[in-house]
Amino acid sequence: MVSEKMKTFMSGNSAIRAMFEEGKKMAKIYGPENVYDFSLGNPSVEPPKEVNEAAIKILQQTAPNALHGYPNNSGFEDVRLFLAQRSNRLHGTDYNERNYVITTGAAAALNIALKVILDPGDEVIVFAPYFGEYNNYVRNYDGVVVPILSDTSTFQPDIASFEQKITDKTKAVIINTPNNPTGVVYSEETLKAIADILNKKSAKTGRPIYIISDEPYRELVYDGIKVPFVPDYYNNTFIAYSYSKSLSLPGERIGYVCVNSAADGFDDIVSCLNVANRICGFVNAPTLWQKVIPYCADLKVDISVYEQNRKDLYNMLTELGYECVKPQGAFYMFPKTLIADDKEFCNAAKEFRLLIVPGSSFGCPGFTRISYCVSHDTVINSYDSFKALKEKFSK
Amino acid sequence: MVSEKMKTFMSGNSAIRAMFEEGKKMAKIYGPENVYDFSLGNPSVEPPKEVNEAAIKILQQTAPNALHGYPNNSGFEDVRLFLAQRSNRLHGTDYNERNYVITTGAAAALNIALKVILDPGDEVIVFAPYFGEYNNYVRNYDGVVVPILSDTSTFQPDIASFEQKITDKTKAVIINTPNNPTGVVYSEETLKAIADILNKKSAKTGRPIYIISDEPYRELVYDGIKVPFVPDYYNNTFIAYSYSKSLSLPGERIGYVCVNSAADGFDDIVSCLNVANRICGFVNAPTLWQKVIPYCADLKVDISVYEQNRKDLYNMLTELGYECVKPQGAFYMFPKTLIADDKEFCNAAKEFRLLIVPGSSFGCPGFTRISYCVSHDTVINSYDSFKALKEKFSK
Repeated sequence: MVSEKMKTFMSGNSAIRAMFEEGKKMAKIYGPENVYDFSLGNPSVEPPKEVNEAAIKILQQTAPNALHGYPNNSGFEDVRLFLAQRSNRLHGTDYNERNYVITTGAAAALNIALKVILDPGDEVIVFAPYFGEYNNYVRNYDGVVVPILSDTSTFQPDIASFEQKITDKTKAVIINTPNNPTGVVYSEETLKAIADILNKKSAKTGRPIYIISDEPYRELVYDGIKVPFVPDYYNNTFIAYSYSKSLSLPGERIGYVCVNSAADGFDDIVSCLNVANRICGFVNAPTLWQKVIPYCADLKVDISVYEQNRKDLYNMLTELGYECVKPQGAFYMFPKTLIADDKEFCNAAKEFRLLIVPGSSFGCPGFTRISYCVSHDTVINSYDSFKALKEKFSK
Repeated sequence: MVSEKMKTFMSGNSAIRAMFEEGKKMAKIYGPENVYDFSLGNPSVEPPKEVNEAAIKILQQTAPNALHGYPNNSGFEDVRLFLAQRSNRLHGTDYNERNYVITTGAAAALNIALKVILDPGDEVIVFAPYFGEYNNYVRNYDGVVVPILSDTSTFQPDIASFEQKITDKTKAVIINTPNNPTGVVYSEETLKAIADILNKKSAKTGRPIYIISDEPYRELVYDGIKVPFVPDYYNNTFIAYSYSKSLSLPGERIGYVCVNSAADGFDDIVSCLNVANRICGFVNAPTLWQKVIPYCADLKVDISVYEQNRKDLYNMLTELGYECVKPQGAFYMFPKTLIADDKEFCNAAKEFRLLIVPGSSFGCPGFTRISYCVSHDTVINSYDSFKALKEKFSK
C-alpha cells in the first residue's frame, strides 16, 4: 500500500506540525488565551495592506487569461526582470530575468535547486541547528545530509569542523541566515571563511560545491543588523527566497530561486531549474501572486511587533535564569533546556500549557525553539508558565 | 554541475513547451493572426466572472492572517469538507474531509500520490497516447512507466494487452479521461474491464494496484456525454483533479487529490499524502485559491466556444481527408499524420505556420495533437494551411 520509502519519511515526520495540531486541541480544552503556543513559524503580524490592495487591483485590471493562464515555467518574464533589476540596484549585481525562477515559496526553490544538482549519494552539508525539512528535501533526491554542529555559544558555524567534513561527494552547503531556529545572522567573517574553504576544496577537486542560501527571514532583522549578500562572498550561490515571512504570505506559496551569474554551469543550471519546476509538479508559481511581487517587494510587515516580543521574551527568559543567545533576526529564540533531554523538557512544558519544540528536531539536542511570532499578550502571559517550568527543574 | 540524473530528465524535455516558445517567436515574425498555434493546452475561454469576484470578496472580507497564513498541509478543513459533501451529493460517496488533500493543481496531486505509493522499480501502467509528463512524475520516484498502446480506431485502452502487461511489480495504473491528447472518454465497459482485471490480479498477489484517475477535463465534455466516476467501478482509486481547465485557472495551481474511502490502506495513505505534500515542497495549495473553491466548484467556463471549435475543426479536417477519432471531451483532437514520421510531419506543418505536436510526445507515433483551446478565428483561418499541408503529402 504505502511504499517502504515513504514509510522512512513518515518516521521522521515533523514534530513541529504535530505540536501545532496538539496546540489546537489544547486551545479547545483550556481556551486559546490560556495556551502559550510557541510551536509554529506562522506569522502573527498582518501583511502590509498594499498586498491585498495590489492583488485586488490586479484581479480587476488584468485580462483574466493573461493573469490566470500558464506563464513560462520560470514565471512571468517582466516579474523576473523586476527582481533582477531590484537586485542590481540593492546589491550591485548584473542579473537579468534568466537568473530567476519564481517558485511556490522557498520550499519549492530548495527542491528544484536540489533536484538539479544532486545525484544519489551526493552530500549536502548543513549547520546544526537547522530547519528539519532540509533532511526531507535532500532525501527526495537521494542525497545525504551531513550536519555539522555549530558553536552553541554563538550559533555561528564551526569552521574547523566544516573543513574536515567536506568530501569528494560534497555537492552543496545549505545556509540559513537569519537562522531558523536560532535567529542568528551569519557574520561576514563566517561567510568569508566558508567561501575560502569551498574555493580551496573546489580548486583541488575541480568539482564545484554550491551554497544554497535559504533566506526567508532576510527582511526580519533587528538592531540595524545587515544580512550579508552571499554572492558577494561566493560565486557558486543559489538564493532561495520566500515572501512568506517578509509579507506574511506563507499560505500563498510565493518566492523564487536566484542563481548567481558567476556560478559554474550557469546556463545549464537555469535551463534545468525551469524544467525541474515543471517536472517536480510545481509547474509555475501561482500567477496572481507573481504579479503582486513588483508592487510589494520593497515592503515588509511591521516588524516592531516581533521586535517587542523578542525583547520582552529574551528579558523574561534570561531573568528567569534560562540561557539563550540573543537572536538578531527571524522570530525564533533557541534557549538551552534545563535538562539534557530536550524532548522530555518540552513534554514537561505542556503541563504549563507551553508549546515549544525540542532542539532535536533541528539536529541540536539540549535546546528548545520558541517561535515568538505570536501576540504580545501570549509572550507576557506566558511568564508564570516559564517560571513554573524553571522551578520544576530547579528542585 | 548539473546532476547526471537531471540530464536524463532534460533529454526528454517537453516538445510541447518548446513548440509553445517557437510559436511566440513565429508570432513576432508573421503576426499572431497568421500563426495557427495549436500546440499548448492553455485555456482560451475566460474564467467565469464569479471566480475573480469570489477572490476579491475573500481578500476584502477575510482576516489577512487567517487567509494568507499556513493552513493544515492538506488544506483548509472547511474546504475539504465542502469537497467531500459535494462528492457525496453528486456521486453518492461517503467522503469526509479526510478523503481530500488540496493541491497546487493536478501535477502536485499526481506527484504526491506517486510519492506515497511507489518504491524504486515499481511499475505504473499508462495507456498510450498519454500525457508525457507522466514519464517524469513516475521517474521522480524511480518508478517505471509501462505504456500500453490503445486501440487507435477508438483510443479506448487495449484490454487484452493490459491484462498481459500486469506484473508483480505493477503498483498503479494512470488513466486520464477525458483524455489528453485524444479527447476520448473511457466508457463504462472499459472501466469495468480494467477493474475486473485489477481485482483478479490483486486477489492473486494480495498486493493492491491503484488506479490514479487524472481528471482535469472532467467538466469539458460534449454531446451530453457522461464521464463515469471511477470509484463506482474500482475501490483502490485516487482522483487527481484540477481547476485549471474547468475554471481556466492553470496559472494559479489549484486542485486536489481524493482517495476513495474503500481504498486499501486508506488511513495510512491519507496520513502520507499530508506529509508528502509538505516534504515534496508544495507545503499547501495557495490559500486564497483554496477559499475560492466553495464559491466556484459548481461553475465552469463557457464550453460552447470549445464545442464550436471542435465541430468546425473536426469537419474541416475530415473534409480535407484527415482521419480522426471524434473527441468527446477536453480540447484536443488527435488525427493521423499523413506520413508515418509524425515528427517530420509536424515540422513540415510549420511551413504553413501550423503548430501541432507530434504523437510521439504522447507515446503514439503516426498521430498529431491539435489543441483547439484557441480563438474560433484561428480554427477557421487555419483552413488553407491544413489544406496546403494535405496537398504537400498527397503528391
